[in-house]
Amino acid sequence: MRVLGIDPGLRNLGWGVIEVEGSKLRHIANGICHSSGGDGDLAQRLVSLYTQLSAVVRDHAPDTAAVEHTFVNKDAVATLKLGQARGIALLVPAQAGLTVGEYAPNAVKKTVVGVGHAAKQQVDHMIRLHFPGAVIAGPDAADALAIAICHAYNCQSAGKLEAALQRASA
Amino acid sequence: MRVLGIDPGLRNLGWGVIEVEGSKLRHIANGICHSSGGDGDLAQRLVSLYTQLSAVVRDHAPDTAAVEHTFVNKDAVATLKLGQARGIALLVPAQAGLTVGEYAPNAVKKTVVGVGHAAKQQVDHMIRLHFPGAVIAGPDAADALAIAICHAYNCQSAGKLEAALQRASA
Repeated sequence: MRVLGIDPGLRNLGWGVIEVEGSKLRHIANGICHSSGGDGDLAQRLVSLYTQLSAVVRDHAPDTAAVEHTFVNKDAVATLKLGQARGIALLVPAQAGLTVGEYAPNAVKKTVVGVGHAAKQQVDHMIRLHFPGAVIAGPDAADALAIAICHAYNCQSAGKLEAALQRASA
Repeated sequence: MRVLGIDPGLRNLGWGVIEVEGSKLRHIANGICHSSGGDGDLAQRLVSLYTQLSAVVRDHAPDTAAVEHTFVNKDAVATLKLGQARGIALLVPAQAGLTVGEYAPNAVKKTVVGVGHAAKQQVDHMIRLHFPGAVIAGPDAADALAIAICHAYNCQSAGKLEAALQRASA
């Protein structure tokens, strides 16, 4: 099973693709979709993110996707910007027919680092330990790989639960 | 010139298309794109809005578009949701090659009603006066028509200014 993780952002949208084989996770690819420009170019920036992310989905053919349910802070202007980028991050995989999971940052950190309030550097460090040799495009790409790992574990747990329920009802 | 106005929202996304002929504005169509469901269906709801709004652009072939730059309130969760819908509202016309203007609600109200702090009912009333006989799908569609009118006046002013500058430099 191939899992696409996305860390949404308007300027830098991180993405990471991993392959799940039983209990093993393999790094496939990661990167960052960039969109630059001012507020006046917002619509064009969203088109650019859409085009770049669509190419990622086409090139790496994930089976499922997950997007970080980003922490909503008190800066409403930043939240609105983030929401716009997040709209694209959810739209693109769903248009490709994938289910799209959503995880809070704390859930992602807890899965990857073991604690919910880990620093960004710890996530980056654990991702490099998880995937030795993989070239990580930056912190946003490391976050995206962490989201993919979180989703992979979650899908496996859900699968195991489903299997257990099926056995119980059989 | 055909102008598409969009009042973004996740549950109800209002749209309105007007035709500008010299100083005259003519109503072409208006409506509301609905997306229902809970937070778990967010990606699918965005796909639904994308599909519905793409059909509006295809059916009514606008030359330019404008989206309300919605007031950012203190409810961060609502702002994030709105941002996601707004991302789709900006993406769809830009993908069709249109320029997309953005206007603050006060600018829209000032153009249509004459004052920036007009009530929603006043906007609705003025839209019905502007376009007698047009069937307005609801307050969100009336708002979208108001945004289209604001954009039309703005484009005309910009055009006049440009023409004046060209005359001045000739």
